[in-house]
Amino acid sequence: MSKTLFKGIISYPITPFNAEDGGVDIETLGHLIDRLIKDGSHAIAPLGSTGESAYLNDNEWHEVAEASIDKVAGRVPVVVGISDLTTRNAVHRAKFAEKAGADAVMVLPISYWKLSEREIFQHYTAISEAIGIPVMIYNNPATSGIDMTPELIVRMVKEIDNVTMVKESSGDIQRMHRLFNLSDGEIPFYNGSNPLALEAFAAGATGWCTAAPNLIPAWTLRLYEAAIAGDLKQAREVFYKQLPLLQFILKGGLPTTIKAGLQLRGFEAGIPRQPLLPLDAAGQNELAAMLKQLNG
Amino acid sequence: MSKTLFKGIISYPITPFNAEDGGVDIETLGHLIDRLIKDGSHAIAPLGSTGESAYLNDNEWHEVAEASIDKVAGRVPVVVGISDLTTRNAVHRAKFAEKAGADAVMVLPISYWKLSEREIFQHYTAISEAIGIPVMIYNNPATSGIDMTPELIVRMVKEIDNVTMVKESSGDIQRMHRLFNLSDGEIPFYNGSNPLALEAFAAGATGWCTAAPNLIPAWTLRLYEAAIAGDLKQAREVFYKQLPLLQFILKGGLPTTIKAGLQLRGFEAGIPRQPLLPLDAAGQNELAAMLKQLNG
Amino acid sequence: MSKTLFKGIISYPITPFNAEDGGVDIETLGHLIDRLIKDGSHAIAPLGSTGESAYLNDNEWHEVAEASIDKVAGRVPVVVGISDLTTRNAVHRAKFAEKAGADAVMVLPISYWKLSEREIFQHYTAISEAIGIPVMIYNNPATSGIDMTPELIVRMVKEIDNVTMVKESSGDIQRMHRLFNLSDGEIPFYNGSNPLALEAFAAGATGWCTAAPNLIPAWTLRLYEAAIAGDLKQAREVFYKQLPLLQFILKGGLPTTIKAGLQLRGFEAGIPRQPLLPLDAAGQNELAAMLKQLNG
Amino acid sequence: MSKTLFKGIISYPITPFNAEDGGVDIETLGHLIDRLIKDGSHAIAPLGSTGESAYLNDNEWHEVAEASIDKVAGRVPVVVGISDLTTRNAVHRAKFAEKAGADAVMVLPISYWKLSEREIFQHYTAISEAIGIPVMIYNNPATSGIDMTPELIVRMVKEIDNVTMVKESSGDIQRMHRLFNLSDGEIPFYNGSNPLALEAFAAGATGWCTAAPNLIPAWTLRLYEAAIAGDLKQAREVFYKQLPLLQFILKGGLPTTIKAGLQLRGFEAGIPRQPLLPLDAAGQNELAAMLKQLNG
Repeated sequence: MSKTLFKGIISYPITPFNAEDGGVDIETLGHLIDRLIKDGSHAIAPLGSTGESAYLNDNEWHEVAEASIDKVAGRVPVVVGISDLTTRNAVHRAKFAEKAGADAVMVLPISYWKLSEREIFQHYTAISEAIGIPVMIYNNPATSGIDMTPELIVRMVKEIDNVTMVKESSGDIQRMHRLFNLSDGEIPFYNGSNPLALEAFAAGATGWCTAAPNLIPAWTLRLYEAAIAGDLKQAREVFYKQLPLLQFILKGGLPTTIKAGLQLRGFEAGIPRQPLLPLDAAGQNELAAMLKQLNG
Repeated sequence: MSKTLFKGIISYPITPFNAEDGGVDIETLGHLIDRLIKDGSHAIAPLGSTGESAYLNDNEWHEVAEASIDKVAGRVPVVVGISDLTTRNAVHRAKFAEKAGADAVMVLPISYWKLSEREIFQHYTAISEAIGIPVMIYNNPATSGIDMTPELIVRMVKEIDNVTMVKESSGDIQRMHRLFNLSDGEIPFYNGSNPLALEAFAAGATGWCTAAPNLIPAWTLRLYEAAIAGDLKQAREVFYKQLPLLQFILKGGLPTTIKAGLQLRGFEAGIPRQPLLPLDAAGQNELAAMLKQLNG
Repeated sequence: MSKTLFKGIISYPITPFNAEDGGVDIETLGHLIDRLIKDGSHAIAPLGSTGESAYLNDNEWHEVAEASIDKVAGRVPVVVGISDLTTRNAVHRAKFAEKAGADAVMVLPISYWKLSEREIFQHYTAISEAIGIPVMIYNNPATSGIDMTPELIVRMVKEIDNVTMVKESSGDIQRMHRLFNLSDGEIPFYNGSNPLALEAFAAGATGWCTAAPNLIPAWTLRLYEAAIAGDLKQAREVFYKQLPLLQFILKGGLPTTIKAGLQLRGFEAGIPRQPLLPLDAAGQNELAAMLKQLNG
Repeated sequence: MSKTLFKGIISYPITPFNAEDGGVDIETLGHLIDRLIKDGSHAIAPLGSTGESAYLNDNEWHEVAEASIDKVAGRVPVVVGISDLTTRNAVHRAKFAEKAGADAVMVLPISYWKLSEREIFQHYTAISEAIGIPVMIYNNPATSGIDMTPELIVRMVKEIDNVTMVKESSGDIQRMHRLFNLSDGEIPFYNGSNPLALEAFAAGATGWCTAAPNLIPAWTLRLYEAAIAGDLKQAREVFYKQLPLLQFILKGGLPTTIKAGLQLRGFEAGIPRQPLLPLDAAGQNELAAMLKQLNG
């Protein structure tokens, strides 16, 4: 059942690039996935925003999708990110992901030209009709330029087969309230805004989609565990401890900051792809101090 | 100690107007205050936004301040709202409130011309130096046109005597996080945005400044009690039940909707002052249905 | 005919305060009005935003309205600003202005609680029905907190007697296009955003409501004259010369910067009323340099 | 000299797709370009936003670039749009365009992750260093998710070789003022926001980058000619006549509305690529009425 397919900490690996020619480094990606699972992630989400999927070419995308699913090898569920400008290519990638063994796809409509609700609806319909696995609607206006209302989201869950869950990354807690109200609490929603993690769980989020486990896996788990135990005091305490880091990685861009943080932790995963630049020295110092405080 | 002076449910009475000439109806105000205290409010806050203080002339304002404090008569603490365009008048009112026996004042700087941080700082300084009771900084950009950053707020608490606490009504949970971080959790903050009540308590708010107890006092108490007990499941459940009403009163304007709701509950408190108009028929029906569901 | 009652440069005097007790300085106001008329203003608008009307008490307001109209003495038309929170007081002031001899009133609805279109409509209706002189709708979301759509504005001009013209200060040129389109160019509109002066004339504005003539009267006239002569090259040239000053007075707040500028020109009109503070030293230097360049 | 390379009406052809498989229809593109030149365009800009370049694959992009330049054959200058997510691909396309004979490239940085000014600067630097033809900075926050300040733009023009001009599509006339002020009127700027065409010329724009000539070429020329003749009255008159259509094509999305309009004019150029959908029936009727009124 899709509703319980994903819960807890859904971890977003970065996509490592090698130092020689900047190509995808599949071996390192495998090590990172192993590490995320070993550290307690409840699911793995390759090719998300964190994974720089927008900056990969078609071959690289296929390679990462396949390698990630193979590496996870059923230990936890896998949801693959699909964020293409054209419907045709999005359909192609969704089918590829299904065939490669993904448990679900997470679909982010991307805007160059603003899309009408009619256009968004048909985009999700075309993708969902082409596959047989669940689709997670992904709302992230800051990266995609498209802001889907809770009303549209709930309508798509109700009317389009396979569309069964929502990742909300707008950072607006009222959106989660609205999703809850409009569906009588029936549609599982996931929080994709790191600095909202405490309140999203308070509001009933089923899981937290986050790149933070690349850097501070134990802290993200502690928050989730306190939340499901209903222990508000403990949840608040562990949240405020990790909040500065959560704010830092959001503000600095996830690929940029997570890759810098991995290096600080002794895990070499390369730098982000241009026009993205590596974290500057001041940022590295700030991040190092945070990681030291949290990870000892 | 100011930090524990106010906590829990801080109730905002409307200001009743009589039907004859639209003047302030002090007797009915007294009944309403009695009722709010009897229903469990932990503090009373006359002359807030809900109290239409912006629409009262000087004499009316003085009358309401004095009568409210007298009526409460020490049963719970009283914080009086001060929201004048000129510093001179704000100082005058703060001194009046102190003399009349207020436990604290809540100060909202009002913009016609946008104020610089230097101007806001001196406004709070002038008021705080004129009195000997605590000052609550009140940030409400939607009504006042001024949006104070957490950085400015914390600086004022640290540098201006008597300024000791904050009411945050921007509705942005990240502001509360920032207040917490900047003060190591030492500055008590209160939530003034009704649809944020659950998450504000999750984030550590000391109290909830709200007009909702005029209509659904038991529900607001239930949320607070679950929150301080750390019972997240119960808190979420009672929050979602009252959320539609919380959204409704915010969207429709508090004086307008609370006065309509009081009438629906059989408590005649008149209509708001023009240009504000009474709630229209459709709104009254919607509100009646909500109240029936919540209050039985 | 209202359409031709006002055109060209409509000048907004500041309200001078004396140094002793900060009270209104009527004599200096008279000198300023004389000067504005002598310098070529086509109309005078006391008690606008520039005139700090929001910071005056009732007596002061009456005094300024009466003295301004008397001083102008019919040399040019006078439009008096009305910007009260309550409808009752706005009606009272409009009647007072008419009785004192105003040619028109300029009405700005003010928000503490947001007003619905129904509430705005009845506010204008109540005022317009109480008087027999033209009403200019004044849209200025930045100071009033209310943003009236062109659709609402045009509807009010068509449906409410005496409402005949519009001052648009949102700074959005598309609003002027919309007013033009919706009324087939029949409703006269005036520009109240200084840095938009060139384009507003290009788009067909009948006049420019501005405080700039307090400081650079000749330059504002030059722009208007080039615009009505249809000489785009000359209009552009004189506009860009004065633009830095127009941006400066908008950004720094009109009462603050105009009073500082008057002093720099040797005309002592006091400082703005607190919480507004006098222009700081850096700002004064910047302004002095601009004035020197423009006025020689 | 780059400053005079482009001026007047710079026309953006759509990219036609064939009905069979939705592929690029090069022959029809050629007819459209012929028509635009015959109708008086002063320059041609293939692969802009209107040209759906964001929705083309690499092969299609190359094909359109080459065919467009060949077809223009030096009759007017050609500026090719470059809007890639990665710097590497943007460099590749710029070099391709130069080799194919483009007179200039127009570079739009695209955001998935927000870019810092440092990242934007190096993106332009990498592209400009790779080619020997002028670069037009293209600011269009609505489609690209990146909003470059006038300060950054002017700095890049001054510091990066080949970067010599700016297309501003934010629709904010104050940006053009700022560009003018910061460069003492020395940097040529072009307007990319159709409903701002009149005011942009008033503010000194060197040209108008627009898809409107696909539908109403004579009207766009009339506006430009009146503007350079300095005839404000005539400019205003022809602008207001075409403004409803300019607003319509902006609001409905340029590829969608221009393709519908071409069909209404009897020029079959296919429909936009999904997720973009063809203009709906109501929109077609509205557009047909506008075209009839303008083109007779």
